Amino acid sequence: MNIALSLSYVGTAYHGWQVQKNGISVQETVTKAVNQLLKCDTYVSGAGRTDAGVHARKYLANFKADCSIPLDRLPLALGAQLPEDIAVNGAAEVPDGFDARFSCTKKEYAYYVYPARMRDPFRVGRAYRYHYPLDLGRMQAGAQYFVGTHDFNAVRSVGTPVKSTVRTIFWCEVEPCPDNLIRIRVCGDGFLYNMVRAISGTLLYVGSGKLAPEDVPRILESRDRELAGPTLPACGLFMNRLWYDDTPELAPLRLNE
Amino acid sequence: MNIALSLSYVGTAYHGWQVQKNGISVQETVTKAVNQLLKCDTYVSGAGRTDAGVHARKYLANFKADCSIPLDRLPLALGAQLPEDIAVNGAAEVPDGFDARFSCTKKEYAYYVYPARMRDPFRVGRAYRYHYPLDLGRMQAGAQYFVGTHDFNAVRSVGTPVKSTVRTIFWCEVEPCPDNLIRIRVCGDGFLYNMVRAISGTLLYVGSGKLAPEDVPRILESRDRELAGPTLPACGLFMNRLWYDDTPELAPLRLNE
Repeated sequence: MNIALSLSYVGTAYHGWQVQKNGISVQETVTKAVNQLLKCDTYVSGAGRTDAGVHARKYLANFKADCSIPLDRLPLALGAQLPEDIAVNGAAEVPDGFDARFSCTKKEYAYYVYPARMRDPFRVGRAYRYHYPLDLGRMQAGAQYFVGTHDFNAVRSVGTPVKSTVRTIFWCEVEPCPDNLIRIRVCGDGFLYNMVRAISGTLLYVGSGKLAPEDVPRILESRDRELAGPTLPACGLFMNRLWYDDTPELAPLRLNE
Repeated sequence: MNIALSLSYVGTAYHGWQVQKNGISVQETVTKAVNQLLKCDTYVSGAGRTDAGVHARKYLANFKADCSIPLDRLPLALGAQLPEDIAVNGAAEVPDGFDARFSCTKKEYAYYVYPARMRDPFRVGRAYRYHYPLDLGRMQAGAQYFVGTHDFNAVRSVGTPVKSTVRTIFWCEVEPCPDNLIRIRVCGDGFLYNMVRAISGTLLYVGSGKLAPEDVPRILESRDRELAGPTLPACGLFMNRLWYDDTPELAPLRLNE
């Protein structure tokens, strides 16, 4: 059986999703829990890498194993094996060829930031505090320039080699949330390393007046990482929603709500 | 100088506000930071005890010391000496006779609960998950019976001996918050040990049908702890707002917003 699991996790304690040599990963933790519960020796794949300290509000993983536990009971049984910062929200049987990463057609990340001189202890590790006031209208104007198919070389960090730095961004929304929190939502067909964190850092520069909204297209055209804003810390970043075409089995998992 | 500090803290890592033998307290942590920064040997008093794991959205503490740092810079300077889960939001000079605990006239606590079968990892340590569905209307009806001057012996834990178990509750509100979160706000002139947690536990029993709203006055009259609902875990409890009469110096600290 090919089984998909809908997860959410607080990434603070983990060295990212992917198995690492230098620390505990979410992937390793979930894989161990699955193997222990189902007494098998499988491997859990995820929708994408998230870096150390990055969170997931919605995340999809899949594994192949014989599952003796009814699927509707799997989330509760697996949740009991997992630490409190990882939750299993649903499980579904999916076609053999389904892969949480390669079958994914669209992903949305959310970056949370709040402008403040003082830290909010309840947001430590969950949102990024920016010392300067932010103009939401400017940020919204700048964000629109990221939408479309562009070469995003100027807003990525050098990591794993990639064939192309062209990606398609479907939307990039800057929204006010209660208590002075700002959310930047970016949805795309794929993302380069640190791309959302560099887009968000560029939008903070636009919002605080260090850059103009109209600088964004020039920065993208330049392909020069030095011209864009900083790569923001991992703490404010959440994998937020996921889309998979032609997989009705996933509908009950409500990955894009 | 008598200096008042407005604080907020995530209580998860602390054995409560008050200095304890068996673990680190918020009081000890703030006292150390003040003494280190101001090179003095004072003692920080707080608005009230909070138990291990209880949080404070607004909290007031005061200490007496010579302060060489301008008061408007004290929050930032002190914040730099403190761990990330404690924040200093403001400082004010107050009259000599002012005491954060004894001068306090009204306190409001908030208890956060969410009805769910599965845990939300982002709420672990910050809200209490209740396994059963909750009827908000029933909870609101039950809450009204706590308002007024009553003997609250049925909704307290035996702790430090008290002269009287009579207290006055000014309001007790049950409110829906986004994402299926429920907030119970209780404001009173004083609280018995675990009183808000037992009131909240009783309201969960009312909301899930184990008790009727009309059982609340009968339970209070009985003075019998066994008849009320359970004392809920500390994680959902926040000191939320504070009132001090005749202390205009505190107005800029906005303790009751």
